[in-house]
Amino acid sequence: MVQNILVIGGDLRLVYLSKILAKENYNIYTYGLEKSEDIGNKSNSIEEVINKIDIVITSIPLSKDGNNVYMPYSFYELSIEELFKKIENKILISGNINNEIKSMAEKYNVNIIDLMKNEELTIYNTIATAEGTIKIAIEETNKTIYNSKVLILGFGRVGKTLADRFYGMKANVYCEARKDEDIAWINTYGYDSVNLNDLENCLSEFDIIINTIPIKVLDEKRLKKINTKCLIIDLASNPGGIDFEKANEYGIKNIHALALPGKVAPYTSAEFIKKIIDKIMKN
Amino acid sequence: MVQNILVIGGDLRLVYLSKILAKENYNIYTYGLEKSEDIGNKSNSIEEVINKIDIVITSIPLSKDGNNVYMPYSFYELSIEELFKKIENKILISGNINNEIKSMAEKYNVNIIDLMKNEELTIYNTIATAEGTIKIAIEETNKTIYNSKVLILGFGRVGKTLADRFYGMKANVYCEARKDEDIAWINTYGYDSVNLNDLENCLSEFDIIINTIPIKVLDEKRLKKINTKCLIIDLASNPGGIDFEKANEYGIKNIHALALPGKVAPYTSAEFIKKIIDKIMKN
Amino acid sequence: MVQNILVIGGDLRLVYLSKILAKENYNIYTYGLEKSEDIGNKSNSIEEVINKIDIVITSIPLSKDGNNVYMPYSFYELSIEELFKKIENKILISGNINNEIKSMAEKYNVNIIDLMKNEELTIYNTIATAEGTIKIAIEETNKTIYNSKVLILGFGRVGKTLADRFYGMKANVYCEARKDEDIAWINTYGYDSVNLNDLENCLSEFDIIINTIPIKVLDEKRLKKINTKCLIIDLASNPGGIDFEKANEYGIKNIHALALPGKVAPYTSAEFIKKIIDKIMKN
Amino acid sequence: MVQNILVIGGDLRLVYLSKILAKENYNIYTYGLEKSEDIGNKSNSIEEVINKIDIVITSIPLSKDGNNVYMPYSFYELSIEELFKKIENKILISGNINNEIKSMAEKYNVNIIDLMKNEELTIYNTIATAEGTIKIAIEETNKTIYNSKVLILGFGRVGKTLADRFYGMKANVYCEARKDEDIAWINTYGYDSVNLNDLENCLSEFDIIINTIPIKVLDEKRLKKINTKCLIIDLASNPGGIDFEKANEYGIKNIHALALPGKVAPYTSAEFIKKIIDKIMKN
Repeated sequence: MVQNILVIGGDLRLVYLSKILAKENYNIYTYGLEKSEDIGNKSNSIEEVINKIDIVITSIPLSKDGNNVYMPYSFYELSIEELFKKIENKILISGNINNEIKSMAEKYNVNIIDLMKNEELTIYNTIATAEGTIKIAIEETNKTIYNSKVLILGFGRVGKTLADRFYGMKANVYCEARKDEDIAWINTYGYDSVNLNDLENCLSEFDIIINTIPIKVLDEKRLKKINTKCLIIDLASNPGGIDFEKANEYGIKNIHALALPGKVAPYTSAEFIKKIIDKIMKN
Repeated sequence: MVQNILVIGGDLRLVYLSKILAKENYNIYTYGLEKSEDIGNKSNSIEEVINKIDIVITSIPLSKDGNNVYMPYSFYELSIEELFKKIENKILISGNINNEIKSMAEKYNVNIIDLMKNEELTIYNTIATAEGTIKIAIEETNKTIYNSKVLILGFGRVGKTLADRFYGMKANVYCEARKDEDIAWINTYGYDSVNLNDLENCLSEFDIIINTIPIKVLDEKRLKKINTKCLIIDLASNPGGIDFEKANEYGIKNIHALALPGKVAPYTSAEFIKKIIDKIMKN
Repeated sequence: MVQNILVIGGDLRLVYLSKILAKENYNIYTYGLEKSEDIGNKSNSIEEVINKIDIVITSIPLSKDGNNVYMPYSFYELSIEELFKKIENKILISGNINNEIKSMAEKYNVNIIDLMKNEELTIYNTIATAEGTIKIAIEETNKTIYNSKVLILGFGRVGKTLADRFYGMKANVYCEARKDEDIAWINTYGYDSVNLNDLENCLSEFDIIINTIPIKVLDEKRLKKINTKCLIIDLASNPGGIDFEKANEYGIKNIHALALPGKVAPYTSAEFIKKIIDKIMKN
Repeated sequence: MVQNILVIGGDLRLVYLSKILAKENYNIYTYGLEKSEDIGNKSNSIEEVINKIDIVITSIPLSKDGNNVYMPYSFYELSIEELFKKIENKILISGNINNEIKSMAEKYNVNIIDLMKNEELTIYNTIATAEGTIKIAIEETNKTIYNSKVLILGFGRVGKTLADRFYGMKANVYCEARKDEDIAWINTYGYDSVNLNDLENCLSEFDIIINTIPIKVLDEKRLKKINTKCLIIDLASNPGGIDFEKANEYGIKNIHALALPGKVAPYTSAEFIKKIIDKIMKN
């Protein structure tokens, strides 16, 4: 049975997602993507199609400013509450849903699936995040990644993929972790491990430091130990893991790189989202 | 015994090279790098220092316009012939020396060492070339390198390092070669091999095609077979290996990327040049 | 402060462990290792030294027959209960402690630390397990690992390290998993993934199948699908994950490989155990 | 057109080769493989079939004792000269043909193709050689390959593949070479390089040393520097590259491992030979 999907707003990933879905066994309706080329059935309003829709997909994250749906490919605006009102009783796929938005959705009986909490998708997204980080490392240093000493702070999902790819580029990869098990894995994969407790003794040696930990791990005290020729790339979501002000004061180049998958690989990101959509639609 | 080196002009690599050499057992004099920060002993003219100089290093390539020494960090101009006249009877380290320049050098008894013909340096330069190519591949496609089908045309020095790094990024690496031995190495390293004779049958499958062969291998006939979503990166020196006009006509994105080491890793490139200088100075 | 350790019995790993510990800040006493060369202070009885001992280390696993301590380097026998009686009130480091043994230990107030339950050590042990499996794969097939299709059943600790090493040997690595997250990791690392549900459709294609799952995953029905030229290596602890009888009946070569770390790398295994001992001694 | 091939003697590789060829567009006759299961058309004598034969394949190497064809799967003997007499005027594929044998072949107008001189096959054979060496390294040391310091002497064909595979097993790979270009490649691939001139200063640090150089590189003077816990694996053909007597005297474990492809991967080796046969048959 063909299923009807309404895509509302979103960035290039949703444009590609709509195209990919349209090629398969889905009827795609779009709203808020007027600036992109035509995909599926463009609607002039949500109201005119909502009755036949099985599921609604919108921007990931849902909003950037906290009020309006993120619709960079649209000339129009749509507030989050308006959206909920118009899609009452429907299932909505989006991302980065905080408790306030959740309550509002409940008011309109909108059932939100938050893709940013989907473990599988989060893992796949580490691939483009790692590639975006590689690109920054090539661009923003005057050295090769090859033979550089690269420190990755945190051995969670992003840290694991970063380590694999920087290793593949023949960097000298060091990973910081706190747990003995993580240290064991770091060593098993052939990287060098740094225990958080020993961090300060070796910070000065690195050419590139990449942070994935969502707490201020690179504070004033630690920044002071870092070589001023080092590049710091912070991948932790806002407010990040660096004292940016101090880093600038000490003359350490630093880049807070966020939302890399949508930037460096929107098509592949759309394909990964599609995998998840397929599973949701099956249930 | 301390040796005296005069560095004349050149890009960021020669700026870094001067700094690196100055830290070691060399007296460094510079001319034609005024726009960079001060390094070693800045001279106002070549004449005032040339008598105490053991060796002269200049821009790589020596010239971009065929007439003047390449001196992007200088306010002044210096013709190639003027240079030779001023450094008569000296050893000159430079790059990309054609026969015409060679004859002129002989006239002034300048003994030129062409670094672009140094096999060791050429191999080390493949590292930064590969990294620059990786950066372009991330930047200019909307897919991840991961899982992309990447075809490398030519399994010479650049091809070998490209294959290693794209493999490390978990691309599906295909290498084209003509010689049976090269095909055997391609397979032994775990890549897929494509024989030149079978090229046309598979050109349509690739997401990225990278050319390293200095002949027009991607002519009209072959370009016609390439998917319009494919990105072509041409690393072959001018005039390159693609019929660029036709590629544009067919709507295939193509980038002619030259001189990547100096662009993406001038410091590391300077370190590699320094290795070679050290050996030359020993003899 | 120097600490006094008594090592009782055990295989080559405990012989090496004793030597390694003796070189550091420990006083080592041994009992039940008479057949090996002399290490530390050999005691003729446990009783004569037990009073000065801080910690006792014994065989891993504690016993092979369920009654006696495993002491292949001794001419004597020592029952588990005797051991407990002689080391009353002490801390004992050993491995593979079942509930029955645990109760007995409690009776004598022996505080057992079971190294087989130490996550860190278990991870490090996957390295030697993977190497032992590589050795078997080279030995027991008439093909190269290179280019072979290798299926790894289970993507737990052992599965992860196996995949990394077989990939490093340029095999075509397929990993089976059930959880979406595991499948995502398998793909992210560049291996091929097989969902348990699709297993039967592809079993016939493999040259080598390695099982790490401690349930009978290769039952009669699945064995029937496997190519008779395939080699099965079962790493799951007793009773293993294969219907061995049926595998033999169908003429499929199969090897139940257990306790590989002690066999292929007793010295490195001892070093890993030492890491854990150091941490225990600090607390 | 179907081609007729006569296979005479040889080891398991020729048994498999016969089977593989028989499945394709070839008529296979065998002589001197009676102990193996029946393959193709078994002949009781060479004379009865030689007239219809297009090409003869025999043992690689042709002989082990210098007099007789190597026929471990036969009950009979066949001298080299007898063979040549029986296959007068034919093309013979074999291996390891010295000048004396060559002259004899010319006498009978037998045109020998020496597969051991085929560059392509030699490269493919490095794969099984490397795997066999990995197996020996796992078997003959009490450490893991992981984290071991491994020195490879010589960066020719075998050295390159060894380095790749030991690196894939997460060893610390050091390669010795003399030429600057080889050193450059060793570094580019991410291994550590050792210049022959510096060899003696570091020999003591290694856990495993693998020689691929066909001269006595590990002489008395160098052996003295090697740690007695080190394992030496010599892959150089007879007489090898080690002073074996001295190595034994100094208590250094050493293994002269020859003809590994036929031992560890006869089937894959046969497939590689088949590739070459196909090309020969086309011309």
